Amino acid sequence: MINVGVVGYGYWGPNLVRNFAEANGVRMAAVCDARAERRALAEKRYPAIQTYQTWQEIVTDPSLDLIAVSTPVSTHYEIGLAALRAGKHLLVEKPMAMNVEECEGLMDEAAKRNLVLMVDHTFVYTPAVRKMRELVLGGSLGEIYYYDSVRVNLGLFQHDINVIWDLAVHDLAIMDFVLPERPIAVSATGVSHVRGGHENIGYLTMFFNTSRIAHIHVNWLAPVKVRSTLLGGSKKMVVYNDLEPSEKIKVYDRGITVNPNPDNLYQMLVGYRSGDMWAPNLETSEALGVEIRHLVECVENRKQPITGGDAGLEVVRILEYGTRSMRQRGEPVALAAQQREVA
Amino acid sequence: MINVGVVGYGYWGPNLVRNFAEANGVRMAAVCDARAERRALAEKRYPAIQTYQTWQEIVTDPSLDLIAVSTPVSTHYEIGLAALRAGKHLLVEKPMAMNVEECEGLMDEAAKRNLVLMVDHTFVYTPAVRKMRELVLGGSLGEIYYYDSVRVNLGLFQHDINVIWDLAVHDLAIMDFVLPERPIAVSATGVSHVRGGHENIGYLTMFFNTSRIAHIHVNWLAPVKVRSTLLGGSKKMVVYNDLEPSEKIKVYDRGITVNPNPDNLYQMLVGYRSGDMWAPNLETSEALGVEIRHLVECVENRKQPITGGDAGLEVVRILEYGTRSMRQRGEPVALAAQQREVA
Amino acid sequence: MINVGVVGYGYWGPNLVRNFAEANGVRMAAVCDARAERRALAEKRYPAIQTYQTWQEIVTDPSLDLIAVSTPVSTHYEIGLAALRAGKHLLVEKPMAMNVEECEGLMDEAAKRNLVLMVDHTFVYTPAVRKMRELVLGGSLGEIYYYDSVRVNLGLFQHDINVIWDLAVHDLAIMDFVLPERPIAVSATGVSHVRGGHENIGYLTMFFNTSRIAHIHVNWLAPVKVRSTLLGGSKKMVVYNDLEPSEKIKVYDRGITVNPNPDNLYQMLVGYRSGDMWAPNLETSEALGVEIRHLVECVENRKQPITGGDAGLEVVRILEYGTRSMRQRGEPVALAAQQREVA
Amino acid sequence: MINVGVVGYGYWGPNLVRNFAEANGVRMAAVCDARAERRALAEKRYPAIQTYQTWQEIVTDPSLDLIAVSTPVSTHYEIGLAALRAGKHLLVEKPMAMNVEECEGLMDEAAKRNLVLMVDHTFVYTPAVRKMRELVLGGSLGEIYYYDSVRVNLGLFQHDINVIWDLAVHDLAIMDFVLPERPIAVSATGVSHVRGGHENIGYLTMFFNTSRIAHIHVNWLAPVKVRSTLLGGSKKMVVYNDLEPSEKIKVYDRGITVNPNPDNLYQMLVGYRSGDMWAPNLETSEALGVEIRHLVECVENRKQPITGGDAGLEVVRILEYGTRSMRQRGEPVALAAQQREVA
Repeated sequence: MINVGVVGYGYWGPNLVRNFAEANGVRMAAVCDARAERRALAEKRYPAIQTYQTWQEIVTDPSLDLIAVSTPVSTHYEIGLAALRAGKHLLVEKPMAMNVEECEGLMDEAAKRNLVLMVDHTFVYTPAVRKMRELVLGGSLGEIYYYDSVRVNLGLFQHDINVIWDLAVHDLAIMDFVLPERPIAVSATGVSHVRGGHENIGYLTMFFNTSRIAHIHVNWLAPVKVRSTLLGGSKKMVVYNDLEPSEKIKVYDRGITVNPNPDNLYQMLVGYRSGDMWAPNLETSEALGVEIRHLVECVENRKQPITGGDAGLEVVRILEYGTRSMRQRGEPVALAAQQREVA
Repeated sequence: MINVGVVGYGYWGPNLVRNFAEANGVRMAAVCDARAERRALAEKRYPAIQTYQTWQEIVTDPSLDLIAVSTPVSTHYEIGLAALRAGKHLLVEKPMAMNVEECEGLMDEAAKRNLVLMVDHTFVYTPAVRKMRELVLGGSLGEIYYYDSVRVNLGLFQHDINVIWDLAVHDLAIMDFVLPERPIAVSATGVSHVRGGHENIGYLTMFFNTSRIAHIHVNWLAPVKVRSTLLGGSKKMVVYNDLEPSEKIKVYDRGITVNPNPDNLYQMLVGYRSGDMWAPNLETSEALGVEIRHLVECVENRKQPITGGDAGLEVVRILEYGTRSMRQRGEPVALAAQQREVA
Repeated sequence: MINVGVVGYGYWGPNLVRNFAEANGVRMAAVCDARAERRALAEKRYPAIQTYQTWQEIVTDPSLDLIAVSTPVSTHYEIGLAALRAGKHLLVEKPMAMNVEECEGLMDEAAKRNLVLMVDHTFVYTPAVRKMRELVLGGSLGEIYYYDSVRVNLGLFQHDINVIWDLAVHDLAIMDFVLPERPIAVSATGVSHVRGGHENIGYLTMFFNTSRIAHIHVNWLAPVKVRSTLLGGSKKMVVYNDLEPSEKIKVYDRGITVNPNPDNLYQMLVGYRSGDMWAPNLETSEALGVEIRHLVECVENRKQPITGGDAGLEVVRILEYGTRSMRQRGEPVALAAQQREVA
Repeated sequence: MINVGVVGYGYWGPNLVRNFAEANGVRMAAVCDARAERRALAEKRYPAIQTYQTWQEIVTDPSLDLIAVSTPVSTHYEIGLAALRAGKHLLVEKPMAMNVEECEGLMDEAAKRNLVLMVDHTFVYTPAVRKMRELVLGGSLGEIYYYDSVRVNLGLFQHDINVIWDLAVHDLAIMDFVLPERPIAVSATGVSHVRGGHENIGYLTMFFNTSRIAHIHVNWLAPVKVRSTLLGGSKKMVVYNDLEPSEKIKVYDRGITVNPNPDNLYQMLVGYRSGDMWAPNLETSEALGVEIRHLVECVENRKQPITGGDAGLEVVRILEYGTRSMRQRGEPVALAAQQREVA
């Protein structure tokens, strides 16, 4: 039985608590929030749990085995490190931390103490994203030409991070799970429309060692909500619309055929191929439930999670370097040192 | 009565010929195409017209007053210049020419000879785009924060230009008509997936003197067709979906309100405002017909067209500088010298 | 403080319990379900509540003031009557009972004892339906020409009722709230595709004293989910799509104009008017919460609920007579005696 | 070479003329319209054709082999009969005529003279409808449970027929082509909202010898255009949306499984099966072109067309009997005498 404490009972924390409460092999034991009314709400819903006002108390509660951190990003490193130092396994919200250095600090601490460190890249555990990975790995899409995503809506402006840290983080986590290689450079643009605020519109392009390209458009100030991804391959192409209630994934048997020897200028160099469309049936499991079952199994067997520190670091690296590019109007930035030795 | 000759009877030429044939004040007199089967098709449809095999013949036909050039972009300058030198008014397909210098050459020649020079920025004459301009100028959107457009589909790969010259040209023409100022710098990214081919995916960001930003995503290799634009203002926001049969323009009374003095970190700096949506009824006139009526009026009164050489040049400038940025992975390029003296 | 007991903790019961638990002026006191695992689930979620295995126990629990009945329709009358006879106020699931006679029995009992009797016509309390009523009553739609609704999906086949009792009941409840008069006759068709089962496809037409018409299409065996209603008026028309996440209600300024004196056969008798579309912003309140606040207010002040026995009876009358018509392949059936004296 | 004359150059006639003009084996020879401006338009577009003011002239022009009748329905019988009597093959617009008797008159005349009689059931020649027929005949849908169609829009109110004659005719033609048997009875409802006008809203249910059911909803007074059909089978189900630009046909691997021996009332009698969705790639051929090629082949080989008099008669029978039911508020009417001996 893994005893779990959750730090932060704001927007996402209640989902963590609810899923931990229903999971097997887990006792949802404690919740921490600085705000009395949030603690009261947790207590009303879960009369048996312990509540704490400060994170220092919960991370050192000796009855707990695992701490889940669902607080503003700027606090992830400090709270996460304290939890690990207190010998707790750690589930940390995405993005993992504020920069590469903090991520590496958490990874080193977890490695040294042989503790499980998982980043809550929830989308990786959805049936739709798992299906995309299966299609890519199985080869039915052919060579992957591009990943293009739009993730826009009205709100919520964050205090401590810009819009790519808030929204593009989802796509970066998905890309890291679905694509066969990691990008080597990033060019990003974006602006803020609130004086003194962080960028609320952002565009990220990522380059690879091949002709593959990836692009993410995020916006906190859009009149409509869009969650739409194109994944283009040399054989087939996928449209992933997360707002569709049932057919989230559509696979199009469409593409081009290159004619290497056209006779003249007017003849087609490139032909078009248009075939059937197919929407695979997807399970309806809740991603967070799947994720927590995986976490429990990792803790019980001291396994590396699918979305461990390495994935969390990769995502933060692109966010950090992308923000740097964004401040220089798209100046490209190399994504150096993708592989590292764990200390 | 304006006697019109059309050069190029391929994809777009037949639309020009059909609209000239139905326009008042115009005699659709001659068509030129190097391919015998295209000339035969034009003759079958319009038994009364004259056909030519070479552009040299049509541009010097003394019976013609106006030449419309609907050929590959790389030939616009040579054919257009010859037509102007032969004293003909000129309608030239978009993009106007292959670079800024060529555009300026055409503009200078037209100015010197007091001839009308119009660029076929067709979208500018659609009811939807005219409504957007009206909304922007009327002030009901407030300050314009961003223009974001997606224009993707499968095909047609062009021989002499890349995808931003083929597709982003539409958005640049729209922006030049709708937005109150012109961009000052561009950062673009893109790749080619066909060996030796031009870029078939492109992303352009444009910067302005304010915090406004514009972005265009174009793609010849998308499984589905998308023609969707977001226009965000401080008061209201527009979604323009050109594939909608009736409600192409939707105006959302949504946005943010900035709270300058939040009491604490958890309090909202930025509030959200969500009101009604409104889709104005649009005329159903064909854009090309409207455009040709405007052209006739300009020729008759020696007026500058709405989409004259200046608009054509501005669009080409961004395409030329954007392609330069694209070859350097997003390196930003300043859009120098936006105003010029006509020679 | 109103002490509430809920009978039936299956599909809908948990929603009732959750909303009663969060409502002011209410103590969610007891739940009854014949199945041990459902009682266990209720106890886990609400450790403080009392659970009962038989409805006879809960309806006679002297600590309770109000009984909510969320059981199969065939049991509504017996349980509801027992609750009323025990002096409890009554909230009963839709459809209110199996036939007109049963409905009248419950109404008479409630009237005799001065108890509140409410039918859970949930849709009546949604922002979208309330907006439709407001538009109709305010006169902006003009004369109401028709109500047309499609409510289809895959499943759930019911045991004791056919598809119109299961799905058309929603539309009948909405119509009773939104339309200014009640229908005077019904013609219905439908079939069963399961041997020995109830009709799983049904079509209901309702006639009125005017040229108004209403039609409802319901289907348990459709490949896709549709929840779409057209409400046509002489001045404006509404499309209500309950599956839209935000713009559920769209008001179209469209219609016809009749030309009383056309000159000849080819001239139009009827002209078309096409204006703007407008989607009013709707609140996002949960209907059941609104409904329960209304119920509490009715109990506290001994008021008639909006969706009282009269509305419940009207809906059941159409379902009963419609099923009779359905068994005779559309033979029309008069909806006699719409007004009755309460005994 | 078949010499063709077209009677009626109004809404649909120009499509017939254009397709005849482009077809092989055909000379588009003559057009008749009572209105001078329609004749002038035809002459401008096709300088080589002969025009006539009265149908009496064109049907007796000895140079013509085939007459296509595209006039109001009430005139089909008189003009068609005259054309047949003059020894011309006949293509007649849908619906074929005003009643069963007229249809039989035309069929008898054509049979007696060994002339081809074709009804312009255009939808039968679309790739989407041909795919549906292929799916039904191939057995992949299983037993066909229902056909359900919605065909609504704003306008055009017809002078001589009601809305089912104008719009449901398309679905009846499709059903006759796609379904394995013909209906045996009809129940219909509908009303008119224009004083003295024909019904502008209509609902038709058709019954079969099995538990199959068909339903068609048509409306001239809808705020939006809908062209959507559900075709439910025991194995798979089809959604056919004619307004979709590319995926018009979607095949859903969904349905129910019947549990013959449920243990108790709460156990499911009926289970649900949800599998993949598949949208077959469809050709993009224009239906009318396909239809005219078929007509030419039938004339050249004296073959019965797919959409011959028999199909035309069946459709008119349902329209005639359906209108009778509609005037009696859904009273069911048997579709007697479906097979007849040709005189």
